[in-house]
Amino acid sequence: MAELTRTGVSIEEDLLRQFDRVIAKRGYKNRSEAIRDLIRESLVSEAIDRNQQVVATLSMIYDHHRPNLSNKLTEIQHHSHGNVLAATHVHLDADNCLEVVIMRGRSGEIRHLADHMLAMRGVKHGKLVLTSTGKRLR
Amino acid sequence: MAELTRTGVSIEEDLLRQFDRVIAKRGYKNRSEAIRDLIRESLVSEAIDRNQQVVATLSMIYDHHRPNLSNKLTEIQHHSHGNVLAATHVHLDADNCLEVVIMRGRSGEIRHLADHMLAMRGVKHGKLVLTSTGKRLR
Amino acid sequence: MAELTRTGVSIEEDLLRQFDRVIAKRGYKNRSEAIRDLIRESLVSEAIDRNQQVVATLSMIYDHHRPNLSNKLTEIQHHSHGNVLAATHVHLDADNCLEVVIMRGRSGEIRHLADHMLAMRGVKHGKLVLTSTGKRLR
Amino acid sequence: MAELTRTGVSIEEDLLRQFDRVIAKRGYKNRSEAIRDLIRESLVSEAIDRNQQVVATLSMIYDHHRPNLSNKLTEIQHHSHGNVLAATHVHLDADNCLEVVIMRGRSGEIRHLADHMLAMRGVKHGKLVLTSTGKRLR
Repeated sequence: MAELTRTGVSIEEDLLRQFDRVIAKRGYKNRSEAIRDLIRESLVSEAIDRNQQVVATLSMIYDHHRPNLSNKLTEIQHHSHGNVLAATHVHLDADNCLEVVIMRGRSGEIRHLADHMLAMRGVKHGKLVLTSTGKRLR
Repeated sequence: MAELTRTGVSIEEDLLRQFDRVIAKRGYKNRSEAIRDLIRESLVSEAIDRNQQVVATLSMIYDHHRPNLSNKLTEIQHHSHGNVLAATHVHLDADNCLEVVIMRGRSGEIRHLADHMLAMRGVKHGKLVLTSTGKRLR
Repeated sequence: MAELTRTGVSIEEDLLRQFDRVIAKRGYKNRSEAIRDLIRESLVSEAIDRNQQVVATLSMIYDHHRPNLSNKLTEIQHHSHGNVLAATHVHLDADNCLEVVIMRGRSGEIRHLADHMLAMRGVKHGKLVLTSTGKRLR
Repeated sequence: MAELTRTGVSIEEDLLRQFDRVIAKRGYKNRSEAIRDLIRESLVSEAIDRNQQVVATLSMIYDHHRPNLSNKLTEIQHHSHGNVLAATHVHLDADNCLEVVIMRGRSGEIRHLADHMLAMRGVKHGKLVLTSTGKRLR
């Protein structure tokens, strides 16, 4: 764990009281941790905007009965093995699968790869989230 | 202006250095102000989720030549005068108008009103943003 | 108004029924208009991502009593008169103002300008939305 | 696979040409599939807003060296076994782990569960995405 330093924030009393209420409800044990999380969130947004290295998760719902779709999705992922770290498959019901693909790379290339999978017929819905590699968030 | 208090945040040194770089680029003069803005942003999100009073801005691009559209938009706004505070109209070019409608009310009713205007034929595109009434952000 | 053409979409019956229900609730008179709006929305997202010309609305809540803030905001806007089309000011209550600034330009420069205003002390909260100039949405 | 029906959309020629360009770039083979995806996306947003059953993926970056954190995360997930379907763990580097937790339930309870994990000390960053169970997207 990295070394901690201490910084002071001057803030309106009433604002702080409201913030304490909101973070307590979200399960935070202390205010510092909640503020650190806000700071990290702003750094991650910045990294994504600047096409830096990110970790990404693509969640796709697809039709289990679509012939050959599962194979094609696997093929794309293997072909991009430099960007694809892992995939988890969940059988939601008799008709629907969820596939969650974990990727790493520059935000631009990850978006392109995700678009390609989401465009396939039988993929009903999907969403991509980009987060940090963690390296710069210590 | 409300009374200020001071709170300390313990945070990883490297994280703080990165944050200082990012906020300098965005034009912040000091770190306290940047952290206060993050805190206010999280309180506003909370207020929106809980269907509290918000101020909202609806920006719509519409077709200037669509017969009667402008009148209909004005009519809807008058009919909801309890929620509509002001409207600004900009002539973007010979064909396109921008109308920005400023509203106040519970987040749910504001969304409903916005949906209604966005669904009108000739309204090409629009976006609604919800922000705070400012009252609780001192 | 531009010339209309007709395209066919093959779609699952149950999906279409659900869509009809949702758009009726949002106030759409017919399905074509709702689908056109979805198509326009996807084109606007694309334009924003590619740093093309956009129209933008910045909604800011600020502290009415902060000395000189109003002047500084006006000054920034004048200085960027090439990008700023109009501004609307609403007195929300004794302490809070809403200022809505309408801008036009490339998405990158607009974001920069907005960041600059949002970073000012006394600006409590703000949100930027980017939409289309309308030109390509006929 | 569900039965297909056909619906016609009247649309401006130029708009359709632009849409065709954008979807080709994203890898779509045909226009119907792209429009179906837009329709499904709008239905999923609706379901999330109405606190219906959703499938969700929470992606968290956390500090590998934080004592006991991994156990606590696992414990929370077991305790919510009715909502947690699966979890995938990736070792990003010597310090950072990614944990992707796949959940199912009403959007409100899923958000609550995610907030609880994200608030834990050592969880550096995380994002939750909500998607459909697939059932209603045929």
